[in-house]
Amino acid sequence: MRHIISIKDFGRDEIDALLEKAAKIQKLGSYKRTLEGKLVALLFFEPSTRTRMSFTSALARLGGDPITVDSVEGSSISKGETLADTVRVVSSYVDAIVLRHPKEGAALLASEFASVPVINAGDGAGQHPSQTLLDLFTIKENMPLDGIDVGLLGDLRYGRTAHSLSYALSNYDVRLHTIAPKSLEMPAGHMSELKKRGVEVIEHQGLEEVINDLDVLYATRIQRERFPDSASYSRVANTYRITPDTLKDVRENLILLHPLPRAGEISPEVDALPYAKYFRQAQNGIPVRMAMLEEVML
Amino acid sequence: MRHIISIKDFGRDEIDALLEKAAKIQKLGSYKRTLEGKLVALLFFEPSTRTRMSFTSALARLGGDPITVDSVEGSSISKGETLADTVRVVSSYVDAIVLRHPKEGAALLASEFASVPVINAGDGAGQHPSQTLLDLFTIKENMPLDGIDVGLLGDLRYGRTAHSLSYALSNYDVRLHTIAPKSLEMPAGHMSELKKRGVEVIEHQGLEEVINDLDVLYATRIQRERFPDSASYSRVANTYRITPDTLKDVRENLILLHPLPRAGEISPEVDALPYAKYFRQAQNGIPVRMAMLEEVML
Amino acid sequence: MRHIISIKDFGRDEIDALLEKAAKIQKLGSYKRTLEGKLVALLFFEPSTRTRMSFTSALARLGGDPITVDSVEGSSISKGETLADTVRVVSSYVDAIVLRHPKEGAALLASEFASVPVINAGDGAGQHPSQTLLDLFTIKENMPLDGIDVGLLGDLRYGRTAHSLSYALSNYDVRLHTIAPKSLEMPAGHMSELKKRGVEVIEHQGLEEVINDLDVLYATRIQRERFPDSASYSRVANTYRITPDTLKDVRENLILLHPLPRAGEISPEVDALPYAKYFRQAQNGIPVRMAMLEEVML
Repeated sequence: MRHIISIKDFGRDEIDALLEKAAKIQKLGSYKRTLEGKLVALLFFEPSTRTRMSFTSALARLGGDPITVDSVEGSSISKGETLADTVRVVSSYVDAIVLRHPKEGAALLASEFASVPVINAGDGAGQHPSQTLLDLFTIKENMPLDGIDVGLLGDLRYGRTAHSLSYALSNYDVRLHTIAPKSLEMPAGHMSELKKRGVEVIEHQGLEEVINDLDVLYATRIQRERFPDSASYSRVANTYRITPDTLKDVRENLILLHPLPRAGEISPEVDALPYAKYFRQAQNGIPVRMAMLEEVML
Repeated sequence: MRHIISIKDFGRDEIDALLEKAAKIQKLGSYKRTLEGKLVALLFFEPSTRTRMSFTSALARLGGDPITVDSVEGSSISKGETLADTVRVVSSYVDAIVLRHPKEGAALLASEFASVPVINAGDGAGQHPSQTLLDLFTIKENMPLDGIDVGLLGDLRYGRTAHSLSYALSNYDVRLHTIAPKSLEMPAGHMSELKKRGVEVIEHQGLEEVINDLDVLYATRIQRERFPDSASYSRVANTYRITPDTLKDVRENLILLHPLPRAGEISPEVDALPYAKYFRQAQNGIPVRMAMLEEVML
Repeated sequence: MRHIISIKDFGRDEIDALLEKAAKIQKLGSYKRTLEGKLVALLFFEPSTRTRMSFTSALARLGGDPITVDSVEGSSISKGETLADTVRVVSSYVDAIVLRHPKEGAALLASEFASVPVINAGDGAGQHPSQTLLDLFTIKENMPLDGIDVGLLGDLRYGRTAHSLSYALSNYDVRLHTIAPKSLEMPAGHMSELKKRGVEVIEHQGLEEVINDLDVLYATRIQRERFPDSASYSRVANTYRITPDTLKDVRENLILLHPLPRAGEISPEVDALPYAKYFRQAQNGIPVRMAMLEEVML
């Protein structure tokens, strides 16, 4: 049985195969109902409405049916029993489980007790492989994954999506540029893991010093809660805010990505520029998740 | 692309066409699955379980699938990002959006950013066109929309459904009777808008002075919160309470409507009388919403 | 029209017929979509995620579609109107109603106002017939329902599942053994009802005095809230905890059941033993609920 728990379980060939499968699905336009009659439990033990909607849409496009547990119910279900028991019971109701959980490692644990495939839809500070795959998909849609300069902007300390994406990119020949304020820099451990895997990582503090040399700029949210006071938050947030002006001398082929929701990191005036690919990126979640669902259930 | 935002966007011909479409659907009995494979996001940023159930049922009858965001999730989704961003992302997941939102104007705004049709399922003090259409449908099922006396009873100051219905009826040759306690009378602005559109509007304070001259009595909920104390609330509520006794001399063809839920405005003994059409009215929400969903998606 | 409100409405023949129907469904493996195009409202006015998921899965396996109201919405819906009104309106949206409600008698009341079949999915201290039917189904899967010794362990005072199961078993030739701490013993009224129906009931306080004479041991949760302090709770909970050691001299054919979730009553090491049937029991909820849904809708 196949589970999808962490992007670290995927080699380059496997990533490429999944992305190609997703690309084929997207090209089809009208979908084959390959999962007709299949039931999938969407166990969301913490709120993530967008991820849930995207998986539900992907499933429906393939003809499958969802059984949803949202975070309110999830917290009540988890109060009473171990995740192992929950997963064993739910396994007998459905054909696959998509799990969102606040605790790192929850998806792996679930996969050990489930009698059906488990897809990790984010477990705490841990992994969120469908996000990483749709990030990669969106880059590949615009340029080859080899030989490119990728900037990671924002909260690189706590930002799970930036960690996973950088790890996945280490399968390719990319140069990574980290752009983060002091105190939100990429953890040393993760940095050295990337370097050990042969990635060139260049650290920056200011966006202006590197933006014109990038093919991909991946912006993430900087959360107010990370700062001692709102003045220091505002200072950082303003420095990293992307406006049309920020982009005036960038490479023609630059693409600007963001896992969304954004909260001021990218000004709305940027939306109309050709660099803005973040809504397209969200849209790409559908074919990528369709591919993942087929991967574990067919 | 067609959105359904406000009943004010509909001319008489368009209303008639939609009502006729709904009547045809209802007559069919067994439904054609015209929306098979279509996905609709039901974004409910405030609770309205009955409206959500009715739209979900209508959609399912046509073979479509819902993706639901309830008010708990809705409030968390809306915390993080603008409605414009939410709608753009969700647009890429589904084939149409049904939106319920606490803020007036939200549906119009959503329609400007959505890349799929938007149906307004109520936006604050604003519009709720599907309710108005099913109100009209229920009247038309029982009598022609022209040449009738329609009474609007209850909270005509804040009651959105009474405003919308009276506006829609201004497309027809009706005489309107408002029956409201002091302080809950129809706003002067709305009143003069109706008159400008050629409607004769007669104001009453007591129900007994007009009930025997009505073809339609549309009762609405009087909310306790509108009154300074519960004594003054009870006095008003009792005056307007409809019982079998209230109805003893009414026109034979009178129909009694209520958008539901009721809270004492109509006593349960009335349910068995031939005038009582409020449960039928709720039921009519299905064919009317089926017609609306087909209207925007086919 | 057929409702399923209480196991007390079922005679032995009717129970046997439903269990046989469920067994046939289970044997089929691939399901016939007999409820294609049918809509079922799952009105959950209190949380019961597992029951809801199980009914939803059963419905989907038969090709039907759910419209779910969860407890958060349910409490808001019920605030505004009587259950009678809610049920009348919802009846016009769907083909059947599955109702979970905190108040005993709610399902019966709902069935009197509904114009579609109602299935009781638990009403307060009242009935929960689908749980009882799946309990019986699991026993019957392993042994005949006649001529067996059944132990009921745990909170027999408040435990609804134990009451219903014991009542249902009174249709068969079984010997019941109650095993409960002082203060959580089976109520005298229920006890005498069982005896009046011809069941031999033997009371025990210690599990060790009877466990080796049982064919079925049905364990239920002992809730901490029932005890004055956590020391007295721990004392009782430890006495009744089932471990591999507890089971070392039991009959070879013993089956161990639990309605789940468990909270320490059965240690995880028991899961691997052949006696452990509680996960199978949960799984059996699917064919049993499929049979119930077909029963009321076909």
